[in-house]
Amino acid sequence: MRDAIGIFDSGIGGLTVLRALSEALPYEDTIYLGDTARVPYGTRSAETVVRYAAQAAKFMAEKRVKLLVVACNTASAVALEAIRETCPSTHFPVVGVIDPGVREALRVSRTRRVGVIGTEATIRSDAYVRALKADDPAVQVFTKACPLFVPLAEEGWQESDVAALTAERYLAGFRDLGVDTLVLGCTHYPVLASVIQKTVGPEITLIDSASATASAVRDTLKDRALDRPAPAAGTRAASQRFYVTDAHERFVKVGSRFLGRDLAGVITVEL
Amino acid sequence: MRDAIGIFDSGIGGLTVLRALSEALPYEDTIYLGDTARVPYGTRSAETVVRYAAQAAKFMAEKRVKLLVVACNTASAVALEAIRETCPSTHFPVVGVIDPGVREALRVSRTRRVGVIGTEATIRSDAYVRALKADDPAVQVFTKACPLFVPLAEEGWQESDVAALTAERYLAGFRDLGVDTLVLGCTHYPVLASVIQKTVGPEITLIDSASATASAVRDTLKDRALDRPAPAAGTRAASQRFYVTDAHERFVKVGSRFLGRDLAGVITVEL
Repeated sequence: MRDAIGIFDSGIGGLTVLRALSEALPYEDTIYLGDTARVPYGTRSAETVVRYAAQAAKFMAEKRVKLLVVACNTASAVALEAIRETCPSTHFPVVGVIDPGVREALRVSRTRRVGVIGTEATIRSDAYVRALKADDPAVQVFTKACPLFVPLAEEGWQESDVAALTAERYLAGFRDLGVDTLVLGCTHYPVLASVIQKTVGPEITLIDSASATASAVRDTLKDRALDRPAPAAGTRAASQRFYVTDAHERFVKVGSRFLGRDLAGVITVEL
Repeated sequence: MRDAIGIFDSGIGGLTVLRALSEALPYEDTIYLGDTARVPYGTRSAETVVRYAAQAAKFMAEKRVKLLVVACNTASAVALEAIRETCPSTHFPVVGVIDPGVREALRVSRTRRVGVIGTEATIRSDAYVRALKADDPAVQVFTKACPLFVPLAEEGWQESDVAALTAERYLAGFRDLGVDTLVLGCTHYPVLASVIQKTVGPEITLIDSASATASAVRDTLKDRALDRPAPAAGTRAASQRFYVTDAHERFVKVGSRFLGRDLAGVITVEL
């Protein structure tokens, strides 16, 4: 397969980005790689994440993708420049999930007080704070790591009382801060968007990085004339391939819920 | 350092085993290895866990430990025989956390109906069911994977309403089964013992594998005349060394809570 969009994630969460991409760009072929043998990246050191991400980028270069989406917030936070540097021979653009979410948040916010939630590593990296302030030094940023959200989403408990109480514990503090925009800085969090919205109240706009990233990919492809036109009626549909580095069954079971449809033909690879 | 007891775990959870060991055998030196770069093992395939565990055993052999505790339930479930086979040159006994817990459960149970809770991989491996039935074919075993318990323990939320509700969702079913014994089949779970006990009620005895394993280690050392006698007054205290494969700061922060005292001098190694 050539000319596909590559989507790399530490595991399952990036499937919410693939889902948004498929809705925005239904004619594009995609190759998804979930590094399920080494998930989660969120608790690892920056050097380790950089090493893993470089291996994934090499895999995608061999698959000759035309664009690479780094769908993992942790990898986007600490490894995006490294990927661009370590793959100089591969001439494809690399899109992370942080910059699109940041741009959308700054477009939406009126109070210039923005909240960001994510994994411990993403929050600790300060990547969102730096990116937000680089675009607007006057913006005030409030962050919170929410480690329980990932296993809640994977367990499928997004509608449960446990999810409501957990969201209350993590997010109640955002209600009195004058924040009007909250960035979901982890690809798992769109699964919990409903309970998060209920907890922070309707005055706060949630920024789903998955949708923002899909828009950024569409723009980048168009700018470089890499986008695929709508095919003639009757020709084949877009193809989606899935690779994981471990634990196939679990990826299929949980991933189908994230993707919104059944996952089939998942191949296990070594990086 | 020679003649120490080696304790290997996928991450932080094994510190509850180290804690029980230190209480049972206060004079023994210990070397703890947490494979924090690759935690959790609970969602990985058996082949991967076997490979990781063999590397850890080799590390411990180089440190010349006199006994190795595999404190990780997942590794004990799928890799114990492999460790014994792949390290034939290393003449130290290997103790897992499953058999001691199983023996204690069968000693305690009157109804011969035993519950087991653990990670997805431990439960899926059926290791507890096989071990329980090997000792008593008539025993009835009821199992439940509880994936939220690990992040709850690591977050320090063991006393929270979230923990209570999560325990209720996972464990309510055990109350009507005639089960009188519940094995905590994950080293994180002793941190949640109080909320688990409240949820299942006082009629069910919890089996803490950490304590059961410490007793098994004491017996094994005594049988082989490897135990260290109480030192003379005024001589040095037992030494404890800690090695991790990644993310040092997080291990120290969360681990101190699991161990019940401050962690110092943690060294990062590559396996």
